[in-house]
Amino acid sequence: MKESYSEKAYSLEPKLYKTKITPSQPLTVMKRGDSLTLDLGSHYVGYLTFTLWYVDHFIDAPVTLRFRFAEVYDELEDDSPYHGTLSASWLQDETITLDEIGIHTLPRRYAARYVRITVLHSPKTLSLSDFSFTALTSADEGCLIHARIDDPVLKALDTVSLRTLKNCMQRVFEDGPKRDRRLWLGDLRLQALTSYETYPSPALVRRCLYLFAAADKNEYGLMQSFVFDSPIFASGNWIITDYALMFAVTLSDYVKATGDTETFFELLPIAETVLESLHKTRDENGIVTTRCGDVFIDWNRTMSKRTALHGVYLYTLRKLIAALKTLHRSTSRYEARLREGIRDAITHLYNGKAFINPYDRYEYSVHAAVWMVLGGVITGADAQLCLTDALTSPESIKPFTPYMHHYTVEALIEAGLLDNARKYLEEIWGGMHARGGDTFFEVYVKDDPDFSPYGDKKINSMCHAWSCTPAYFIRRYFASEGETP
Amino acid sequence: MKESYSEKAYSLEPKLYKTKITPSQPLTVMKRGDSLTLDLGSHYVGYLTFTLWYVDHFIDAPVTLRFRFAEVYDELEDDSPYHGTLSASWLQDETITLDEIGIHTLPRRYAARYVRITVLHSPKTLSLSDFSFTALTSADEGCLIHARIDDPVLKALDTVSLRTLKNCMQRVFEDGPKRDRRLWLGDLRLQALTSYETYPSPALVRRCLYLFAAADKNEYGLMQSFVFDSPIFASGNWIITDYALMFAVTLSDYVKATGDTETFFELLPIAETVLESLHKTRDENGIVTTRCGDVFIDWNRTMSKRTALHGVYLYTLRKLIAALKTLHRSTSRYEARLREGIRDAITHLYNGKAFINPYDRYEYSVHAAVWMVLGGVITGADAQLCLTDALTSPESIKPFTPYMHHYTVEALIEAGLLDNARKYLEEIWGGMHARGGDTFFEVYVKDDPDFSPYGDKKINSMCHAWSCTPAYFIRRYFASEGETP
Repeated sequence: MKESYSEKAYSLEPKLYKTKITPSQPLTVMKRGDSLTLDLGSHYVGYLTFTLWYVDHFIDAPVTLRFRFAEVYDELEDDSPYHGTLSASWLQDETITLDEIGIHTLPRRYAARYVRITVLHSPKTLSLSDFSFTALTSADEGCLIHARIDDPVLKALDTVSLRTLKNCMQRVFEDGPKRDRRLWLGDLRLQALTSYETYPSPALVRRCLYLFAAADKNEYGLMQSFVFDSPIFASGNWIITDYALMFAVTLSDYVKATGDTETFFELLPIAETVLESLHKTRDENGIVTTRCGDVFIDWNRTMSKRTALHGVYLYTLRKLIAALKTLHRSTSRYEARLREGIRDAITHLYNGKAFINPYDRYEYSVHAAVWMVLGGVITGADAQLCLTDALTSPESIKPFTPYMHHYTVEALIEAGLLDNARKYLEEIWGGMHARGGDTFFEVYVKDDPDFSPYGDKKINSMCHAWSCTPAYFIRRYFASEGETP
Repeated sequence: MKESYSEKAYSLEPKLYKTKITPSQPLTVMKRGDSLTLDLGSHYVGYLTFTLWYVDHFIDAPVTLRFRFAEVYDELEDDSPYHGTLSASWLQDETITLDEIGIHTLPRRYAARYVRITVLHSPKTLSLSDFSFTALTSADEGCLIHARIDDPVLKALDTVSLRTLKNCMQRVFEDGPKRDRRLWLGDLRLQALTSYETYPSPALVRRCLYLFAAADKNEYGLMQSFVFDSPIFASGNWIITDYALMFAVTLSDYVKATGDTETFFELLPIAETVLESLHKTRDENGIVTTRCGDVFIDWNRTMSKRTALHGVYLYTLRKLIAALKTLHRSTSRYEARLREGIRDAITHLYNGKAFINPYDRYEYSVHAAVWMVLGGVITGADAQLCLTDALTSPESIKPFTPYMHHYTVEALIEAGLLDNARKYLEEIWGGMHARGGDTFFEVYVKDDPDFSPYGDKKINSMCHAWSCTPAYFIRRYFASEGETP
């Protein structure tokens, strides 16, 4: 019997590297109501170990401790009641009762830099000591590609970017190690892209591609936008059209970075099915529709996304064509579709200066401009004007998430606006860094630091896959020198 | 180097027998806010295992469950806030967050018949199934001495008594498997006594004697009244004079039941030191004082306990003398002290009809009467009158705890009042049984079912060592026939 995609994925389970982090903390004598706060020195993902012991008298009742794990310090100080839309079970706030003195390792994995421990119940004085945190990642530090980055700002952003990626690299490229620990297709594309420049992990990318190959598909052949790999394989239940297109993009990046044509050709039919479906569901103007599934583009539920989606479709065609060309395969069918798609976009979505959405109140957004440029619809001075206008206009809808910020930088580079790209990168990711993050966040809205798409910032993930790409840009476009050994 | 007492104790660690209890429970589909209640069928001590699985969609967030374990059903329904004096960490009420589907075993041991599980957080519907409870005890069911007990009331009390003892028999004779899981000397004496008639476990008794031999002693040679054996050996920090005397009583019972003279003579000096100290600290009337440590007798903090303590001292002398005589050792010194102690009690504590406490407001209690009878101060018709008067007088202080109830029954038997003893036993332990207990309780006050010495009945232990003795009395004095093989 032919090995299934999921069997192949499970044969590629990565090794998890363990590092013992020892926060400086003298032996702490505590009584009921006392708290202590540990600082691990940086953001890590793993397991907390400590020794509970008695002080004057043997502990004669179980000890109940509250553990709060925080990715950034503010989380520790936020005692407001949770009112978010996502499950409170994601909050890293645990009450644990221990019956005996000794060495204890908490059973759950946490993503944290800070840990606050409060003694809720103990009739006797106790001591907590020998704290250590076993940090896990599947990123092999020995394989890190070292880059010479002279600029201190870029160097700092690179470092934070590496840590973000590394801490999301576990059994899969996780979305966020605090919350939403599954594998998402849109995030995978950005993580894989960054990994080739930093922690090359072709086997992990391949594993994740197989997991999506194994995922449930809808009647259009679009695969689920997320999957679970532990403790068993399971498909998600949300088809997102732009994410499904990213399967072809990730596969094209993969063959380019690794040369693994066997996997590429094995999985190519799955990628092509998605493109074929998009092609078939174009409307009378030749613009792709949202008939195959939902559209994400960015965290903005009211925004119309037709123009941007058409751009993602064209961008995918471009990436696949480039990959096929490298492998000396025929690309004429896809090139024809790309040309038509560009022509139809110019005809129906472009007013000569900006991309507006004729399907929905002529909506004006950075998103449309970015994806039209990335789709190759306009180039040169037209692309530059379109992007800079959209980014500076007070009328336009702006990007919310680092996912969209990434493609904005990518579009600026595509349009030859390298300085603008670097400035944008420094503003967004530098802004996160200035807010004290050791990792880059799931959400960053410059003028609204408390913004959460889930109604409560406590639930936001502060180390998030789709934020990890500065290292990719810096090493590829902004570092003063190439690689050093 | 000579093996220490604690080394000997740890070389005698008992085997724990495991039984898998499977409560009848179909697969249960639950959503946030739902509860289910398991009935294990009887009271057990051990670990809960179950399977968490998904129903329609894979569980995409951790699942937070609340587990409440109850020894009796009422505990499950009591949602009042806890206001007791003992640590709330003893309450068997746990909130556990599980990241993954699969088979889970909760990390802590519980004492329970009922388990209520409530889904606190889960965005998805889930299923809980395959519940099992791994019950632990060091009592060997294969060694249970079967007794023919025709009377259905006594048979029922015997059964509950056996279960109480069995569930307290773990690595040591525990005080209560829900709360206060340590080894107490006063309780040990009653558990050991009952074990010889039911689950003979000489090695476990010997282990516990060594643990007390290893315990810290005060300047009078009185050992701590409780010790901890896990995860390391540790002494308690409460010297109780009457409990320290029970070391000699337990040792005397032990050699009588087992014939193990080697252990007896090895530990005899420790027992004799306690008696010697009591002897030396008698007052000008020859009555033992409370100078060597606190006095327990019963849960009554305002009661004066001098008379009862003198009785415990004489009782201990009687038990030791009997043991030494069996071993053909000289007992003349102890017999002389016993005679003097009896004479002084008659002179100073007895008014010709009742024992009152001339040291404290001529306090009148069942406790004094019981211990004077058990100390051999009065016998025959005098003893009978003294006991029945004290038990029936509206003026007298009555026993609170099953510990004192035990010695009341023992005194009634000693005085030849077998029918009264049986009636008392049926009233007290039968009363607990009538309240639905599968085991006998720590505290039982007939007219005040909510009484707790700790300010909140939720913290009371409902399976408690010192309540296990009905099986001893029934098999020894009330069963219609002797042992059957």
